[in-house]
Parts: sequence; structure tokens; C-alpha cells
Amino acid sequence: MPKVSEEHKERRRQEILDAARRCFARHGYEGATVARLEEETGLSRGAIFNYFENKEALFLAVASTYAERMTAIWLEQGFRALLEEIVHADTDWLAVQIEAVGRIRTEPEFRRQAEELDRRHAESRPDRAARLREHGLREDVPLDALAIFLAVVANGLALRVTVGDPVPDLDVLHELVLTGVSREGRGNP
Amino acid sequence: MPKVSEEHKERRRQEILDAARRCFARHGYEGATVARLEEETGLSRGAIFNYFENKEALFLAVASTYAERMTAIWLEQGFRALLEEIVHADTDWLAVQIEAVGRIRTEPEFRRQAEELDRRHAESRPDRAARLREHGLREDVPLDALAIFLAVVANGLALRVTVGDPVPDLDVLHELVLTGVSREGRGNP
Repeated sequence: MPKVSEEHKERRRQEILDAARRCFARHGYEGATVARLEEETGLSRGAIFNYFENKEALFLAVASTYAERMTAIWLEQGFRALLEEIVHADTDWLAVQIEAVGRIRTEPEFRRQAEELDRRHAESRPDRAARLREHGLREDVPLDALAIFLAVVANGLALRVTVGDPVPDLDVLHELVLTGVSREGRGNP
Repeated sequence: MPKVSEEHKERRRQEILDAARRCFARHGYEGATVARLEEETGLSRGAIFNYFENKEALFLAVASTYAERMTAIWLEQGFRALLEEIVHADTDWLAVQIEAVGRIRTEPEFRRQAEELDRRHAESRPDRAARLREHGLREDVPLDALAIFLAVVANGLALRVTVGDPVPDLDVLHELVLTGVSREGRGNP
């Protein structure tokens, strides 16, 4: 049998992640049964769990890929672009992620896997910090505190969008945030 | 039979709300069965549902009472005091409220009752706005937009606390918010 190339494996992995995200968004975490995951990916459970240890691992990989994409938008296009992305996000998918908050709190195996993923992400933080420094942020406050503030605003907005409350004027929201975090109230955090 | 006084009824209503909150926090929304609600309140289901139409109504009344208390802290003691309250909140209770976000999205009866409660709250907003004006907020941005920004930060922090992420330095977080919303970066939003 020919050896499956790394490239092919990575493409297949991405396809599973995309299909799984649609499936979780549509049916919720519990509702996204293995049978439905098979249907949405067009693959057998054997093939799916060849790439991901179990359903918890698959879900966390989807969530982590999404978080990385959002972070990349923030770092590459600025915080305003991230806010825009959040208000246009798939609210079904946002809701499943919020549902997972409860799961991380109450299910030890879910928690363990989430923490391990967090540790791996922490390794890329120095790089993120270096990128953030290019955004004209104030320097009299630790960069970490600025990043937490921005993340708090982004998550609060996501919660608001998920629950279906009216979307705020993003220009105004962005200006309020910017005044707090940027050097001289200008820049592009 | 003697007529039950209004005062007695109000006290009893408060006792049910307090006991129900503990019950929802401990067991989650589903897990807080009518039997457990009876046990925690020390009352029969007949007595409980004499005060609240059904379990949905009871939960939403608990959540609404909590939201009113948080708003009162914000208006009377300032935004810094609200942030402090959030980081010391019962995370089990925060988690159940976040769980309810999904329920509001997917269960029509839950949604209908939540929206009706929202409408009743909206009536008290002019009063809230008048109180907020005393907090030294900037006047070049609509008060509503400032209130939404502050609510977004509060909810983002609550989400962070619920998931168990490290609590940020509240002095710094408050200063960043304050710079955005206050007249001359001073005041007490």
C-alpha cells in the first residue's frame, strides 16, 4: 500500500475539522453523535478517530482551530476586524462553544484535554506578544494586561451576539477600547 | 383562614428565589428537578408554583433578581465594585446562567418568557441612564453605547471567571475601561 503523504493527511485533517464544526453547530455537542459526524464528514468512525483520539479531542481541535483563526485576524488585520468577525460569526457555533464552558468545568477528561491544549498554545504567546507590540499599544501597562482586556471585550461581545441582543455600533465600541489601550488614543490594537 | 399579608408573600417569594438559586447552582438547570427544588426550599411544589408559573419562570426570576442586584452595585458603588463582585461570584451560578444562553436560543417558551422579562426591565432604563449620568461619563458618545461597552466588559469577565482562567488585575482592567468612558479619563463609571 502506498504511504499516505503528510500533505494528504493534513488536508484530510482540515476537512474533518470543517465538517465537524458544521455538525457541532447544527446539533450541539451531545447531538453531534458519531453517526452524524460520519455523515457530515463522509468518513467512517475509524477514519475520523484515526486523526483524533475521541469526540472530546475532535471538538477541542475544532475550537482551537477557530480560536487560532480569530487570533490571526486580530494580529494581522487589527482588533476592529476581529469585532467585525465576531458579529458575523455563526451564532450556532458560538453557542456550542459557550455550552462547552460548562463541560470544561464539570467533566474531568474534557478539562484535562482543554488544559493540555492551553499549555501548547502558551508556547506561541511570546510570538503573539511581539506581534501585538507593533499595534501602537501603550507601554505603561503590561502587554499581558492589554491582551486580557481585549480578549474580555471580544468574549463579552461574542456572548452578546450569541444571546441575540442587538449588535452595538462597532465603530463606537472600537473607539472606546482604543482610547484605553493605545498610545495617545491612536493606533490599531 | 387569615389572609396572607403582602409582606409575608414577598418574604416567602424571596426565600424561594434564594433557595432556587442554590439549587440551580448546585445541580444545573436540568438537574434542579422539582423534587430537589422542594427539598431546598422546604416547600411543596404547590406552594412554589403558586409564586412562579413554572420552572422556566422560576429560573428567569432568579436570574433577573441577580441581574438587578449587579446593576444596583454598578449604579450605587461604581463599575470597579461590579468587577470585584464578578470575580468573587459563585462560579456554579455563573455557569448555569451561561448554560441558559443556549436554552434561550433553542427553547421557544424559555425565549418568550425571557423576552417578556426584558421588556419589563426596559421600562426602568431611563432611570438607570439618569443614574449613570452622575458617574462622570464622557458626553460625546451616546450613553447607551457607553452602557453597552461596560456590559460587554462585565460579561466578558464573567465568562473568563466561569471557565476558570486567571483573574486579571482589576485595578488595571478598570483603568483601561475608565480611560475609554470617562470625561478626561477621570470619574467613576
